[in-house]
Amino acid sequence: MRKLVAFEPASLDLTSQAAGATRELHASRPSRHLQPGDECLQLFGGYCYMMECPLPRRRADARVQRVSSTPSCGRPTGQAAKERGSDMNEQNREENVVQWRVESGVGHIVLNRPEAANALDSACGHALVEAIGQARRGAGTEVRAVLISSRGKQFCAGGDIREFVERRHDLDQLVRAMLDGLHPAIHALATLPVPVVSAVQGPLGGAGISLALCADLVLASPAMKLRGGYSAIGLSPDLGASYYLARRAGAARAKHILMTNRPVSADDCLRWGLVDELHGADELLPAATALACELAQGATASLGGIKALCDSAFDHDLRTHLELEREALLRCAVSAQGREGVSAFVEKRAPDFASRRPD
Amino acid sequence: MRKLVAFEPASLDLTSQAAGATRELHASRPSRHLQPGDECLQLFGGYCYMMECPLPRRRADARVQRVSSTPSCGRPTGQAAKERGSDMNEQNREENVVQWRVESGVGHIVLNRPEAANALDSACGHALVEAIGQARRGAGTEVRAVLISSRGKQFCAGGDIREFVERRHDLDQLVRAMLDGLHPAIHALATLPVPVVSAVQGPLGGAGISLALCADLVLASPAMKLRGGYSAIGLSPDLGASYYLARRAGAARAKHILMTNRPVSADDCLRWGLVDELHGADELLPAATALACELAQGATASLGGIKALCDSAFDHDLRTHLELEREALLRCAVSAQGREGVSAFVEKRAPDFASRRPD
Amino acid sequence: MRKLVAFEPASLDLTSQAAGATRELHASRPSRHLQPGDECLQLFGGYCYMMECPLPRRRADARVQRVSSTPSCGRPTGQAAKERGSDMNEQNREENVVQWRVESGVGHIVLNRPEAANALDSACGHALVEAIGQARRGAGTEVRAVLISSRGKQFCAGGDIREFVERRHDLDQLVRAMLDGLHPAIHALATLPVPVVSAVQGPLGGAGISLALCADLVLASPAMKLRGGYSAIGLSPDLGASYYLARRAGAARAKHILMTNRPVSADDCLRWGLVDELHGADELLPAATALACELAQGATASLGGIKALCDSAFDHDLRTHLELEREALLRCAVSAQGREGVSAFVEKRAPDFASRRPD
Repeated sequence: MRKLVAFEPASLDLTSQAAGATRELHASRPSRHLQPGDECLQLFGGYCYMMECPLPRRRADARVQRVSSTPSCGRPTGQAAKERGSDMNEQNREENVVQWRVESGVGHIVLNRPEAANALDSACGHALVEAIGQARRGAGTEVRAVLISSRGKQFCAGGDIREFVERRHDLDQLVRAMLDGLHPAIHALATLPVPVVSAVQGPLGGAGISLALCADLVLASPAMKLRGGYSAIGLSPDLGASYYLARRAGAARAKHILMTNRPVSADDCLRWGLVDELHGADELLPAATALACELAQGATASLGGIKALCDSAFDHDLRTHLELEREALLRCAVSAQGREGVSAFVEKRAPDFASRRPD
Repeated sequence: MRKLVAFEPASLDLTSQAAGATRELHASRPSRHLQPGDECLQLFGGYCYMMECPLPRRRADARVQRVSSTPSCGRPTGQAAKERGSDMNEQNREENVVQWRVESGVGHIVLNRPEAANALDSACGHALVEAIGQARRGAGTEVRAVLISSRGKQFCAGGDIREFVERRHDLDQLVRAMLDGLHPAIHALATLPVPVVSAVQGPLGGAGISLALCADLVLASPAMKLRGGYSAIGLSPDLGASYYLARRAGAARAKHILMTNRPVSADDCLRWGLVDELHGADELLPAATALACELAQGATASLGGIKALCDSAFDHDLRTHLELEREALLRCAVSAQGREGVSAFVEKRAPDFASRRPD
Repeated sequence: MRKLVAFEPASLDLTSQAAGATRELHASRPSRHLQPGDECLQLFGGYCYMMECPLPRRRADARVQRVSSTPSCGRPTGQAAKERGSDMNEQNREENVVQWRVESGVGHIVLNRPEAANALDSACGHALVEAIGQARRGAGTEVRAVLISSRGKQFCAGGDIREFVERRHDLDQLVRAMLDGLHPAIHALATLPVPVVSAVQGPLGGAGISLALCADLVLASPAMKLRGGYSAIGLSPDLGASYYLARRAGAARAKHILMTNRPVSADDCLRWGLVDELHGADELLPAATALACELAQGATASLGGIKALCDSAFDHDLRTHLELEREALLRCAVSAQGREGVSAFVEKRAPDFASRRPD
């Protein structure tokens, strides 16, 4: 994995001027909104920008300027890449800011903008909408489960604050344009008829919360840390962030997270139901991939039924729910996959759902 | 309590052939769906059949064949009983697969098919519907609280997979017939105007989850272990299992349980709100009975109001809820039991709700 | 802070007669409803009256008589005050049973009836309705956050049981009159467009639960202890108690709390989401005040949007929620405060929301 100097404090050649700037910043912070995080780094904007910024401001600011002058997505020009530092291995550079591929029935959506903490600018948003469209079109046929992950140390910092700054005089136009694409896409992703898993390897904030938590099953590493960020810059949640936080952890905890902008540790996320499993940093992606593969081998109507039923359990009363359970079970009972499940039992073998038509 | 050899690993006379079969099975398992559970036993089918099967398959399979050849409910013939092993004490054999009795204002529903892990086949389903009907008819008069429990080491394995296997060519007809009776019954049980307590002494899966969790208060012992099981055989939840899991633990945890079929420990169930109290194995039934008796001594309109209000808190907004609270409190305030509660306070004595008409 | 003898067991001059009465009471208690609490004191009624009464009954009863003969709110007459004991410092006596003041943009609602465990009688209810009206009128202009707290060792014992006793022959009329004022008020408080914080320094029960939990963020000290109390006197919840318990901790835990009347510790409250933060007894009020002040400095449309979105996340489906998030974000994006948030970011300074018009 490619690394950026900015993510390696040990290698920073701090001038005494920069060290002084850090002390200055820490000494003068006027409110909690500006308190630096304890360990986590975020240098490139996104809704959770300020808390995640323990490195010297001047150096960080310089980086922001340099990075923001490069194209926000796609392959950087050789010159821009060079400007980022000699540790970037150009030959490993992937083409797209959001990647899509299908392997063993699992559709992989990979955020690939690690140099900007996978923040979503307009171009990245377009690429994400496109990847979700691919998942939607393949769902239930070649795509039987989806895995959302990202490259780099941060999962996703949320909306790209640099673009917000550039467009601050017609911010509503930018918001409108982005959400016109991303809101239908996130709805499509959340309601795919196949299981969706996310692997959260590091900090996330703003709309990054939505992208992680719209999955049915959220796996994370201890390095993940969730921070709202919206209210620190006077904005409000998007892409369903408030929906997922409230539905998973309750309205009160969601308000606490989004109003105070305090970072929530991986342990608290697990405790509160924001995350479903924690895995060591090295085991996270293998575990998430294995889980997605296992689900891709499952029975389509069974898993799709479970998903729809659980997601709607608060949306109607018990009587309606029982009727929906009955309909779903009858669909399974007459499906080739349901017959296979019962036959496999009597024949004392593992069921082979994947080779049966899902009906 | 009657015991079956199958539930006592220590007494198993394992031949080296059977032991080899176990090693074989463990070595060859193709997926998590076939991984045996760590401690918990389940030999007789039900939705959670495979995970709960650490004993040698050949022996287990043999048992399934033998047991499935006996009548699925009611008193077994002497011959069938003998086939089950000499440790069954025939003189303690209860008549019905589901028992109903009223004691001290508490209606007891007892699953009594321990030799089949209290799995629900058609006959058992009918008996359950009948018992719930009795509870419904007596509720508020002679029945002032209900206690759901079961005999044996397993609480309830869910639907009887053996019957599913036999009927796999018209599985939808079987499902339709069972749910036509059981869904209205579970709705009636869940919405009884009196408190319902369940005592979960051991593993449960599939529709057994519904039967345990439709209670207002769920008490369990550390030996309980919850496993979905539906998706392992290509089916989807019934009897409200997805409703209760999602409403108690949130949609995400419900999906995790039902999609992955991983067993959830008693501790995790308590932590996630699937269970309300844990008690030692020997204290569980006494504690659950004491709680049901205590509630049976309570004020009917008060407890019924609390139940209806809490259960509906997610079904409408605050304004509507306040109106419902107001109506319920006014009903209590004019009831003989409400007057008794206030009078008892001023007269410095315990209230005697039970001898007052509930209004 | 003024202290009452009743809250200081060490200073009680117990006659041997009174001590005997205590033993008698403890020995003869017929049910859990009369079991005295372990540590917590409550002598003056309120829905959670009996559990919270470890002091000798005769002495306590005497106190109830004496206290109930004084005016239930406002400044007591000199004679009544003297009757309460020499340890009451009359010069510190505050005028009103519910206080309202605005400081630094924070509206403070303070229950000030510590000698009656801040129980809500009619007069106190009227005063609370009035204070909430003030908060409502100022919200968004001079009032940018609200802090609810109370004086004394108990947060709020709920409805005043003494008044219930006096009016037990037309209890429904009393209930109707009180709820006609308090239910619209609690709705107004819960839906204020600005953040509401509560500081729960001690035990609470009955409608005291509503007053604490209708806040967006609930801070408590380890001395807090929550007890339903309603069903112990044959009544049912009011002021949204069942709504907040169920929405924060789930319907099952809410039923457990309200049906059994068992006290819930501060730790369990934190674990279950009934409380958002715990602070040491001495740090609670400073922490709650600091949090309210911080929120009062926030962006109005941002925080109001977060509150409305989180509170409604269970009231509609994802599609509707995404549309509401979009509308809220567009409002923020064109607001002076939203522009300030983004500008502050680019100008590398803390945002100054408070001096901007909220739009």
